[in-house]
Amino acid sequence: MARKKTRTQPGKVYADRIAAAREEMGGKDLPAYLLTNQMDYHYFTGFTGEDSAVLLTPKRVVLISDGRFEEAIRQECPWVSVVMRKTTVEEAVGKLCQKTRLARLAVQTDCMTVASHKALAKAAKPTRLVAAPPIVNRLRLCKSASELRVLDDAIRIAQDAFKALRRSIRVGQTERQIAARLEYEMQKRGASGPAFPTIVAEGPNAALPHAHPGERKVRKGSAILIDWGAKYRFYNSDLTRMLFVGTIPPKIRKIYGVVLEAQQKAIAAVRPGVRGFDVDAVARAHIRKSGYGKYFGHGTGHGLGLDVHEAPAVSFRTKTDVLEPGHVVTVEPGIYLPGVGGVRIEDDVLVTPDGFRVLTSLSTDIADAVIK
Amino acid sequence: MARKKTRTQPGKVYADRIAAAREEMGGKDLPAYLLTNQMDYHYFTGFTGEDSAVLLTPKRVVLISDGRFEEAIRQECPWVSVVMRKTTVEEAVGKLCQKTRLARLAVQTDCMTVASHKALAKAAKPTRLVAAPPIVNRLRLCKSASELRVLDDAIRIAQDAFKALRRSIRVGQTERQIAARLEYEMQKRGASGPAFPTIVAEGPNAALPHAHPGERKVRKGSAILIDWGAKYRFYNSDLTRMLFVGTIPPKIRKIYGVVLEAQQKAIAAVRPGVRGFDVDAVARAHIRKSGYGKYFGHGTGHGLGLDVHEAPAVSFRTKTDVLEPGHVVTVEPGIYLPGVGGVRIEDDVLVTPDGFRVLTSLSTDIADAVIK
Repeated sequence: MARKKTRTQPGKVYADRIAAAREEMGGKDLPAYLLTNQMDYHYFTGFTGEDSAVLLTPKRVVLISDGRFEEAIRQECPWVSVVMRKTTVEEAVGKLCQKTRLARLAVQTDCMTVASHKALAKAAKPTRLVAAPPIVNRLRLCKSASELRVLDDAIRIAQDAFKALRRSIRVGQTERQIAARLEYEMQKRGASGPAFPTIVAEGPNAALPHAHPGERKVRKGSAILIDWGAKYRFYNSDLTRMLFVGTIPPKIRKIYGVVLEAQQKAIAAVRPGVRGFDVDAVARAHIRKSGYGKYFGHGTGHGLGLDVHEAPAVSFRTKTDVLEPGHVVTVEPGIYLPGVGGVRIEDDVLVTPDGFRVLTSLSTDIADAVIK
Repeated sequence: MARKKTRTQPGKVYADRIAAAREEMGGKDLPAYLLTNQMDYHYFTGFTGEDSAVLLTPKRVVLISDGRFEEAIRQECPWVSVVMRKTTVEEAVGKLCQKTRLARLAVQTDCMTVASHKALAKAAKPTRLVAAPPIVNRLRLCKSASELRVLDDAIRIAQDAFKALRRSIRVGQTERQIAARLEYEMQKRGASGPAFPTIVAEGPNAALPHAHPGERKVRKGSAILIDWGAKYRFYNSDLTRMLFVGTIPPKIRKIYGVVLEAQQKAIAAVRPGVRGFDVDAVARAHIRKSGYGKYFGHGTGHGLGLDVHEAPAVSFRTKTDVLEPGHVVTVEPGIYLPGVGGVRIEDDVLVTPDGFRVLTSLSTDIADAVIK
């Protein structure tokens, strides 16, 4: 049985989220919801440990964790009931299901592995596992005012770090050194780390949309693509800007103009009720009409929050995701010319009741991208 | 159908790995193996992109990827056949199964989600999905000479960075600043990033085995736990050391001695044929006999390689994993006193034909941990 640890009540933020989830669970007649995704159980409890799970029922919040996190639990969520497992998460949850004679348990099939599902089904018998409806996803998509404040901080940190980096760039530095410096500047400003491995791609390397920074060096006339973000209190920012050392290569200048127009048009298309697919289509149509259709192979954007990539998709691959007020998405079209280089411009955009608000504020004017 | 891209043959490293996997597949009568784990398909192809998969058959190596990685594929693995998907990975693989009239497909159920499995089963019909035997895991566990060279580099970078960090630590710095500096020092030395988010925990924070570095400051008499590693060419190092500012708190000095003895005994127990469980038991018994049994809640170690945590487990939770020559594991017992502080000491250890070799070389002498 779970040890009772309910020394205090959850703060309002978590109490509200739990209440919202319970309301949806009631509507769907779900007696219990198992959160195994770390960012999801963090969302409901504030707990920061990994390899854990939260069982949410109409009456209880049970955290299944292990000895490494005993002290963290005391500090972060002393109000949850706790099962300190000495076995696997699946065995511990299974035992709990059996002891509480649970008939059905909703599990997150979009992040639970087949092997884990099989082990849990066996350990929880006769509790039946059912695929959880996307209650949590739905809640996480719409950012509250307090979440937006943290996201704003994550964006500010990333932007300030970029400005500091810009001043430090010199001919002869490698992509890797520049990426390291940018991540350091973000952490100095309070980021717990980069939101994802920073991309710094010089010259032809920028034709690889997901390049890994390497030993390639900055030279006079370099066009450099930088895609970075800060992780701050578990929320992520995500931007892309170009930098040019002294001069702008003519081919790159041309595609910069096309990408920026595509990005501005796509941002202007953001509003409630529109599909991510439609926003993508706006950027894609502009790039296609300009003659670069086959050089834009990726989706236009993605949702942003506790995960760097979360719903809603802003992509030609997903037709179902519809934007709603409170969603935050990236808008980041690009053009990549093999052997020559590439341009991507990325901002973070909030869907508002009557349209959009661009949360990022770094200039996208090509003149501002030139380092003298 | 997959576009043929076989312009060259794979290098010897990849050809050998593919041949070894095919031999095991033949022995198990498996016509096709789908690799969806990124580090696994990287292991067989050198390809560095995400959101992709590799279909391995007796005759072919097919990479299922997307437009973002077109140029990366050309540079990293021009010898693979490529399917550039415009749909989900599952739909693209399913189509391939149907076109090649595949009877059975082995999938990695230990990393494939339930939702992905369901989507793939539907898209691949009538191809039947079967749980893949741990062929790839088995291959990856035993590190080759070339892998060990890269691991040695990852360790060297982490150790050199730590030495540089040690010289820069000052009273008043925050845990976060120290973590940022250490990661920067690793990246300056060629790391693509930290192997995992660096832990810097001062004073009582060190009682949280997985603390997140925060605003807590270094002071005179601080005991600081630092757990860090470098990611270099996708391989990871992982160390933990203590630092003391000026003096060593008596309680911490005492548990340092116990932890170090436990660690040395556990390392001495490493040899082929021994279970990770047994190595854990050696450290655990020593800590228990010293009266701190309930303050050591985590496993003693884990495998190390392309993933920071991979098989074999060195833990009381797993009785099945047996050490073999070529395995690399961490040995990292600890004692955590709530409200007081904690000590963990961690080294990376290679299993050799007749015992072990400690790959890390930073001093664990407590006198060397004191910053004057």
